[in-house]
Amino acid sequence: MITRKERQASPLLDDYPIIYETDVAWGEMDAFQHVNNVVYFRYFESARLKYFERTSMLQEMEETGVGPILHSIGCRFRFPLTYPDRIQVGVRVLTLGEDRLTLHHRVVSERHQRIAAEGEGIVVMYDYRNNRKARLSLTLRSAIAELEGW
Amino acid sequence: MITRKERQASPLLDDYPIIYETDVAWGEMDAFQHVNNVVYFRYFESARLKYFERTSMLQEMEETGVGPILHSIGCRFRFPLTYPDRIQVGVRVLTLGEDRLTLHHRVVSERHQRIAAEGEGIVVMYDYRNNRKARLSLTLRSAIAELEGW
Amino acid sequence: MITRKERQASPLLDDYPIIYETDVAWGEMDAFQHVNNVVYFRYFESARLKYFERTSMLQEMEETGVGPILHSIGCRFRFPLTYPDRIQVGVRVLTLGEDRLTLHHRVVSERHQRIAAEGEGIVVMYDYRNNRKARLSLTLRSAIAELEGW
Amino acid sequence: MITRKERQASPLLDDYPIIYETDVAWGEMDAFQHVNNVVYFRYFESARLKYFERTSMLQEMEETGVGPILHSIGCRFRFPLTYPDRIQVGVRVLTLGEDRLTLHHRVVSERHQRIAAEGEGIVVMYDYRNNRKARLSLTLRSAIAELEGW
Repeated sequence: MITRKERQASPLLDDYPIIYETDVAWGEMDAFQHVNNVVYFRYFESARLKYFERTSMLQEMEETGVGPILHSIGCRFRFPLTYPDRIQVGVRVLTLGEDRLTLHHRVVSERHQRIAAEGEGIVVMYDYRNNRKARLSLTLRSAIAELEGW
Repeated sequence: MITRKERQASPLLDDYPIIYETDVAWGEMDAFQHVNNVVYFRYFESARLKYFERTSMLQEMEETGVGPILHSIGCRFRFPLTYPDRIQVGVRVLTLGEDRLTLHHRVVSERHQRIAAEGEGIVVMYDYRNNRKARLSLTLRSAIAELEGW
Repeated sequence: MITRKERQASPLLDDYPIIYETDVAWGEMDAFQHVNNVVYFRYFESARLKYFERTSMLQEMEETGVGPILHSIGCRFRFPLTYPDRIQVGVRVLTLGEDRLTLHHRVVSERHQRIAAEGEGIVVMYDYRNNRKARLSLTLRSAIAELEGW
Repeated sequence: MITRKERQASPLLDDYPIIYETDVAWGEMDAFQHVNNVVYFRYFESARLKYFERTSMLQEMEETGVGPILHSIGCRFRFPLTYPDRIQVGVRVLTLGEDRLTLHHRVVSERHQRIAAEGEGIVVMYDYRNNRKARLSLTLRSAIAELEGW
């Protein structure tokens, strides 16, 4: 995991507090010789997990049983990634609700210095012990607000 | 590939001319012991490919170099699939534009007889030989309209 | 899941008591336009899970905490699968040891009526509650011997 | 891609001229909460591709139509990887034959400083234009021997 302070992020990711970085794997390409659409959601997920880690969401989940569940997610593909390349995936929170948060993801190609894809998702807090929705805790709200610089 | 005429489809898929069916694989579950979100997009893709096959889109691509490229896609997760289960994935076209079509996907769990997920995507026709957008051919428009019963 | 008695299996799978069947997904092909090597291990896994189900191994795991862990696995690729195709994956047990079993997997292409791949793996019984190897129970030995017709 | 000269490799990878490095992704874990067995073969593949790149095998493939095809591969799992972790995957050539090479892969966990998995594979040279096996070129033999320090 890297953050803007720790490493040189693409200027296209100035507004993103968390940046996940990875190489494109050859095996992520499909028969059209582009990175398969499914893989972008794995990139989003990996970036999201870094966000969750940084805000101690997963730690809170272990303690309280309340953790994130993905409600919905979408992706707009801008140009097809190919191997070899290296990507930076920025993630930031757009809004917080009583029981949910909206996240934005942006994938930037290092080779092309362009946005390859963008997408938004909604994560809902879920009480896995009692099988019902849960509130977003004050601790998490604070951690997110601080990370976002709100 | 099955169609409504060939096999018993879920009543939840009455409006879907193409239904792709598959078993949930154990290895598609993640550490939360649910089918991972990324996998739903693979289900969508497999269903979409069946639609393309049925309307000869891939055959046309081989002949003319004009084929589909995914512009954007989203998924709303309704309840988490788990192994073992078997799913039916319905796909239908909602709208046709000059160079694009909008598709709707619905995933139904056989075990729960409920909708597990739904999603929409936009596919744009692309001239792979000349690297530019292309029009949706009359042949494809007709094949889609016929399949949809418009 | 199907067994030889329930459905017509390929004659190439006469010696396999459990046969897992699935369609090849378009998205399983890589940039060489063949099913990617990694995917065969997912096919093996899905077939293996069916074997485990049929012999109540996973049920025993829930009750006792003793379940299978993959020790090693290999695959010999005979010819490259492509979309569209449908495969049958046979799985059978070759040997039983004190704490382990050796499995053989065979993938047969419906379109080509040929063996696409074969592989062997070793599964070790593991006590997940006490974090150590465990013995293969008499119940499982009996279930396997019966299924194999030993 | 990194090589021993460019970056600090694990001492467990002293004999490996090519080292591929990546983060373990959360979504690579399965319901047993370990990295799924299938994923190790993707790690192997990514490392192998780096080796191919470094020895210009893929470039030669574009020029001559002769490229690698995977004949067989195996993996011995030593301990289960979990998220979060970072791995180094070493790859080296063990033997060269008329039309083939044997590769060894080793996966080292950064968090545990231990070998997580090892595996060997055979790659055969294939003439994709004429659909038949091909010889390993002198150029490739030299590039491999030089890289291995033979």
